[in-house]
Amino acid sequence: MPVFLDTSDADFETAFVRLLNAKREDSPDVDAAVAEIIADVRARGDAAVLELTAKFDRLDLTADKLAISEAEVDAAIASVSPQERAALELAADRIRAYHAQQMPADAQWEDASGATLGWRWSPVSAAGLYVPGGLASYPSSVLMNAIPAQVAGVARLAITVPAPDGVLNPLVLLAARLSGVTEIYRIGGAQAIAALAYGTQTIAPVDKITGPGNAFVAAAKRRVFGKVGIDMIAGPSEILVIADRNNTPDWIALDLLSQAEHDESAQSLLITDDADFGRAVATAVEHRLKTLDRRKIAGASWQDFGAVITVRDLDEAAELSNRIAPEHLELCVADPQALSLKTIHAGAIFLGQYTPEAIGDYVGGPNHVLPTARSARFSSGLSVMDFVKRTTLSQMTPAALRAIGPAAEVLAKSESLEAHGLSVTARLDALNTE
Amino acid sequence: MPVFLDTSDADFETAFVRLLNAKREDSPDVDAAVAEIIADVRARGDAAVLELTAKFDRLDLTADKLAISEAEVDAAIASVSPQERAALELAADRIRAYHAQQMPADAQWEDASGATLGWRWSPVSAAGLYVPGGLASYPSSVLMNAIPAQVAGVARLAITVPAPDGVLNPLVLLAARLSGVTEIYRIGGAQAIAALAYGTQTIAPVDKITGPGNAFVAAAKRRVFGKVGIDMIAGPSEILVIADRNNTPDWIALDLLSQAEHDESAQSLLITDDADFGRAVATAVEHRLKTLDRRKIAGASWQDFGAVITVRDLDEAAELSNRIAPEHLELCVADPQALSLKTIHAGAIFLGQYTPEAIGDYVGGPNHVLPTARSARFSSGLSVMDFVKRTTLSQMTPAALRAIGPAAEVLAKSESLEAHGLSVTARLDALNTE
Repeated sequence: MPVFLDTSDADFETAFVRLLNAKREDSPDVDAAVAEIIADVRARGDAAVLELTAKFDRLDLTADKLAISEAEVDAAIASVSPQERAALELAADRIRAYHAQQMPADAQWEDASGATLGWRWSPVSAAGLYVPGGLASYPSSVLMNAIPAQVAGVARLAITVPAPDGVLNPLVLLAARLSGVTEIYRIGGAQAIAALAYGTQTIAPVDKITGPGNAFVAAAKRRVFGKVGIDMIAGPSEILVIADRNNTPDWIALDLLSQAEHDESAQSLLITDDADFGRAVATAVEHRLKTLDRRKIAGASWQDFGAVITVRDLDEAAELSNRIAPEHLELCVADPQALSLKTIHAGAIFLGQYTPEAIGDYVGGPNHVLPTARSARFSSGLSVMDFVKRTTLSQMTPAALRAIGPAAEVLAKSESLEAHGLSVTARLDALNTE
Repeated sequence: MPVFLDTSDADFETAFVRLLNAKREDSPDVDAAVAEIIADVRARGDAAVLELTAKFDRLDLTADKLAISEAEVDAAIASVSPQERAALELAADRIRAYHAQQMPADAQWEDASGATLGWRWSPVSAAGLYVPGGLASYPSSVLMNAIPAQVAGVARLAITVPAPDGVLNPLVLLAARLSGVTEIYRIGGAQAIAALAYGTQTIAPVDKITGPGNAFVAAAKRRVFGKVGIDMIAGPSEILVIADRNNTPDWIALDLLSQAEHDESAQSLLITDDADFGRAVATAVEHRLKTLDRRKIAGASWQDFGAVITVRDLDEAAELSNRIAPEHLELCVADPQALSLKTIHAGAIFLGQYTPEAIGDYVGGPNHVLPTARSARFSSGLSVMDFVKRTTLSQMTPAALRAIGPAAEVLAKSESLEAHGLSVTARLDALNTE
């Protein structure tokens, strides 16, 4: 059973803080190993990548086989059922339509001094998307990472996906095809991140790397940050459901389990203003756990990190939600729009009882790459913004320089940066003797 | 003398790549020391911060003196000259006006399926701004970091600024006052970053940390990234000026020197389509270097990392500029707006001969915290966007769930995530039996 808390209990605050700070991830310290792998790939390029792939993925390749050919992709895609293809296409279309709304606008204006100011956005030239192999090789993640880059206008879009023992998921390749991926390499781990960041003889370096991965991938992304941009270091998944009594306990139970089944370290939380409803949901979870395919994983997550919290009212629920800053937040209440105005720290909000979180994982439209581990306090889910950057623009006229230049001279002097000041003074002097 | 290159030379590409890859920063490996400092501050809070401040800043404090009081700020500000105050106020007003244009808009719309989709932006609750002490304690940097946070609506805005031997810059305190800073702590180094990220008995933790700093500060920011958000790991400053012959060599020389005087590792580059003009600028630089206060620093930077590159035409200049991806880019050419459309990888562009880069450092309006070391390929200068985060919104109706739910069921099945699928199925079953 998960923990049951009630804000009316005297020791609630202590128990809640313990829940907030529960260390869910036992991340092994792989940093030294990763540093070595990165140095090796930088030094030896393809040769290092091939050796590491043979070692970790039990896959012997030659440099000309690092990339997956169009013909291979075609062959793999042919094995996808029409039903799966249609579902993936619907997902891609909806994700593309949502992300198209995110394209930021350029701006340029003239201010009172006569200066023209503004900015211009442009896409990164090349992005690399890491796709995990094996069990966690999710075609939906390919769509969620690649489509924002495609919408942003990224010209080169490279995927790395390990093929342990040579096995690749055809749906991953179809997802890549549907989302404008231009290159696919059958490599993974820290060596894939190093190859994307620094390049090899075969793989040209990229400017930005996104995508989920294991501890090695996370450590490698942290290390190459600065040389390239990265999205975020993602932790195990989380969901918080805020539900009143007017819900079907089984639906809420399934929503909680849909995060719990991801990972034993995942966390599923329910906040309700009705203790009886909370117990009914917990009972429904236990019932579903009897038959669920991934009951071992989901059960461990629910047992170790699950919680049912009873609150006095929905305002209190919103306060707790903001302290949790959940990755996924479901608002199954009478007026979810009103409550959503109060739950400001969350990666994604799903409003109303007909919006299970799983809709957002696949076909809703918004991105499913979202800030975990309370980082929704300061960061956002993946978006088009991750694949564009802004250049600011300023253009002074002689009049504008006369108006604001003297203040720059004063400040440069106060910071003892003489050449800064002189670069303004020389121009003002010339203007004043004209 | 700096290096002189010409794209017509046979060995140009080799020389240019050498210039691009020149290792300008000799960053000492302080990571182990920083890890220890962070662990110490996490374990012992104020006590650790006080000890480290006594050790590194030669400043003996007690916990109640960590924060600088309003009265102290008042007293320090009283010593600022009216001229300096007016200049700082003009700068603050212009920076605020520019950044106010950056506030991103919320959105919500209904799509063809009947689903309501959108997003909402909200500020981070608390931001910490690191301000270096000593020589590099720049009031302009306080404005550039704090005002975007203020515009974003950040409620708690804490500054840390070391006071070596107890000395503080009154202009830094005035800049803090002008930009809505709510707390100022006289601490610095990795211990300040650790205190902001994890909190101590006296200092509440923040959600986002920005601001420049030395190697210790940079290493600490990299380490706390994930626990809090950070802006970027900044390297030494750079400028690229693209200028045709119709410019005053002395003005361009001063613009190059205004970056060179920052740091011996700074880099100043000139690209011109007229070799004679390039030589004239180099001569003007040498002339100015004879008298410049910071001639030792500026001279070393120009000598070691400066370059004058002659190109065939401005298109070639734009191509090289994009490979350099400079932090600051001046376009001193007949049609700077047209050229700026081609120079897409740059932190900030200054258009025309009346826009010296120094204007942007102080009073232009755009931010002066900009991506260095070629990171303008994938990142942007500091902005309001660094202090807000986006929550995505989705709300299905029964009709919308009927329309798109089946595709989610198919994809959940293909990813072997049964509970994901069941959370949709349970709702569709209920809708279909209504």
